[in-house]
Amino acid sequence: MEDTRWLTDEEQQVWRRLVHLVTVLPAALDAQLQRDARLTHFEYLVLAILSETPGRSRRMTDLAGLVNGSQSRLSHLVGRLERRGLIHRERSTEDRRGSVAVLTEAGWAAVVAAAPGHVAHVRSLVFDQLTPEQVRQLGDTLAAMLDRIAPADSCPGPTNPC
Amino acid sequence: MEDTRWLTDEEQQVWRRLVHLVTVLPAALDAQLQRDARLTHFEYLVLAILSETPGRSRRMTDLAGLVNGSQSRLSHLVGRLERRGLIHRERSTEDRRGSVAVLTEAGWAAVVAAAPGHVAHVRSLVFDQLTPEQVRQLGDTLAAMLDRIAPADSCPGPTNPC
Repeated sequence: MEDTRWLTDEEQQVWRRLVHLVTVLPAALDAQLQRDARLTHFEYLVLAILSETPGRSRRMTDLAGLVNGSQSRLSHLVGRLERRGLIHRERSTEDRRGSVAVLTEAGWAAVVAAAPGHVAHVRSLVFDQLTPEQVRQLGDTLAAMLDRIAPADSCPGPTNPC
Repeated sequence: MEDTRWLTDEEQQVWRRLVHLVTVLPAALDAQLQRDARLTHFEYLVLAILSETPGRSRRMTDLAGLVNGSQSRLSHLVGRLERRGLIHRERSTEDRRGSVAVLTEAGWAAVVAAAPGHVAHVRSLVFDQLTPEQVRQLGDTLAAMLDRIAPADSCPGPTNPC
């Protein structure tokens, strides 16, 4: 314990704020989307990614990487969206063992309906509070942290760079 | 939808990074603490707060606010820690309807044993990646976001300012 580099008072305060943010932000995102679109933020993310993909479809394994979720969590979620008619699953034509999630017309309509309210909420929670310089700095700071916490293939590009 | 102020490319990238961070950081914190101390990060937070409080005890209602958790989530967690002998619950002497969580000697020993490894992990994930200027800016940026997302009483001071 002699060698422990304890956090300074400033670092401790920043750390508490960061822990606070990672606790309250997901709940705030879920609350708006649940209320206005009957979707969790994780469900919305999956639909939004499919809506931005040519063919509106993705292999399940790729989707799990893009939303930083486990395969089993994603399977449950896609099952729920499938029962609501927002997604359907097909066998992959390239890889017979793989499965592909495809956005349905109803799923597309759900994203189109939910997106403006979600973006307005994200603006009001985050970007409206920050100067352009703070946004730029935050981007650099997040990139530096993510390089360490979730390097390489957990955030694939080029269609979803992060 | 005509009025929607969609995110710019830069804002979209920053937003994806932030969503990525709030997904992977809790999992990274849990992984180290589970491996080295058989505690989730949320459990560690509760023990750490109690260890820093005079009398090593807190009303359950105050604890829920300090860790930004719901009463029911906290009750489950405290129940688990109680079965492991790290905490015990007492009736509040001030408020007979209220309940107080008290850190046991074993709980104190668990925090003391876990803290150095946890701090080293937090340093390696976050602070070692950032310059002092970035840490300062991150603190300001997080404060601005939290003012909007979780204002006022969800983050009580002065013992746990955030």
